Amino acid sequence: MFYVIGLGLADERDITVKGLETVRRCKRVYLEAYTSILLVEKTKLEDYYGCPVIVADREMVESESDTILENAGEVDVAFLVVGDPFGATTHSDLVLRARELGIPVQIIHNASIMNAAGACGVQLYNFGQTVSIVFFTDTWRPDSFYARIQENRSIGLHTLCLLDIKVKEQTMENLARGRKIYEPPRYMTINQCIEQLLEVEAKRGEKIYTADTLAVGIARVGAGDEQVIKAGTLGQLQHEDFGPPLHSLVLLGSRLHFLEFDMLRQYSVGLEKLNEVIARDYEH
Amino acid sequence: MFYVIGLGLADERDITVKGLETVRRCKRVYLEAYTSILLVEKTKLEDYYGCPVIVADREMVESESDTILENAGEVDVAFLVVGDPFGATTHSDLVLRARELGIPVQIIHNASIMNAAGACGVQLYNFGQTVSIVFFTDTWRPDSFYARIQENRSIGLHTLCLLDIKVKEQTMENLARGRKIYEPPRYMTINQCIEQLLEVEAKRGEKIYTADTLAVGIARVGAGDEQVIKAGTLGQLQHEDFGPPLHSLVLLGSRLHFLEFDMLRQYSVGLEKLNEVIARDYEH
Repeated sequence: MFYVIGLGLADERDITVKGLETVRRCKRVYLEAYTSILLVEKTKLEDYYGCPVIVADREMVESESDTILENAGEVDVAFLVVGDPFGATTHSDLVLRARELGIPVQIIHNASIMNAAGACGVQLYNFGQTVSIVFFTDTWRPDSFYARIQENRSIGLHTLCLLDIKVKEQTMENLARGRKIYEPPRYMTINQCIEQLLEVEAKRGEKIYTADTLAVGIARVGAGDEQVIKAGTLGQLQHEDFGPPLHSLVLLGSRLHFLEFDMLRQYSVGLEKLNEVIARDYEH
Repeated sequence: MFYVIGLGLADERDITVKGLETVRRCKRVYLEAYTSILLVEKTKLEDYYGCPVIVADREMVESESDTILENAGEVDVAFLVVGDPFGATTHSDLVLRARELGIPVQIIHNASIMNAAGACGVQLYNFGQTVSIVFFTDTWRPDSFYARIQENRSIGLHTLCLLDIKVKEQTMENLARGRKIYEPPRYMTINQCIEQLLEVEAKRGEKIYTADTLAVGIARVGAGDEQVIKAGTLGQLQHEDFGPPLHSLVLLGSRLHFLEFDMLRQYSVGLEKLNEVIARDYEH
């Protein structure tokens, strides 16, 4: 059996009991390590599971899927995914491939940022499509998220912005020379995300959102006391410290109820400003 | 500490390790039992946790929250929620109330239908707002979901339809006479949902969707071999058997990629029709 197992959000104990029992009886255990990360080291997982964990990078998952799936029809193989198995398309690929090979597949679900984002205090029901915000470079500043946010906001919905992570990246030079030297991992901060959002708004100028738009920055969701949630305008949050990764941002739409305002006030970085924006944008 | 703990989707072993360890050291354990259900009995949970579980119905959660929160500043109290803690607004209320009372709160996340719906084979990124479909009665046939689906579809997004569950309901007569006699629980099926969707479309006539619109019916998601996923047109799925509860329906929007079609084909109840609709609605 090929098991795709969600690890949840923060540490080794966020796996489900069913997931843990399954991992412990698998012959091979892979950890997908490029669409998200846990907040603990791989060795901690190995100690906890009592078995070695093979890190599967993008290259391996995308071009060596048959190695991962090898003899999974006869023995149990686990493929661990941070969050829930269906957060990223790449895992669907693997599931499809397994089924093509006649290998039975079982999914063990877990929390992902897609539902845990509800921790920010607004109803999950009213989220629209999710957008990815990637690191801008000097020559590549993709802004397709802008149209997506516009669509969501046109019908009142919130937007969950997932922030880029770069692991196992090579410089152009190392890539060109075929040197497998990798740069240190980089994780986009909420501050960088807001900077990019506002840069694109300044360029496009359609007033889809402004520095005065309400948002909630969420960092290390599910990590107990390490979790940070701060609500305010984009302008306010841009200068807040959210600590280490992972960061996400919820850009609020117009569909908010009074109970949700109470939640936002609890996370406010400046109550006066928050109340002013609520009165201006929501209670008129 | 007041812990709000997600139980995940199907059985007692879907709780996270962190959640289980926490429940086992709590002095009082409540189970929210009206917005969703696990597929196992309460006694199974009690055996597994090694402690009694107090069922909290809507009345208790909404009007006796201070009983639930009593002395949670001094001892550990757990409030268990099927799925993830932030699936329903009612739990935000409780968290807010706890904080007003100065009680520290910790959330332990888990999978919910809101993210596990990705199991149907289409990207979670492209879901719009979620709608609830409630049981129609002779005199109450609310159709506000129609406008929500229209909004989602106008920008190409999928719609997750959550289907009504009725637990601890009283007949009008028993309610009027103050008799605490409850009707057997009822869970809307995918078939009933589709019937209601098509009834409203027939009445409103805006062709937001038709019997030819693609959808995926998902039943008992996360329950291993009990899980059923079937893809097809609303007309096709209307007559399919999905087995016991819980059921949900994903109404597909236009934003689909070829990889997702492959997933849908795997779950198809009639490949010829599916391919015909894909060619007509998606590949033109």
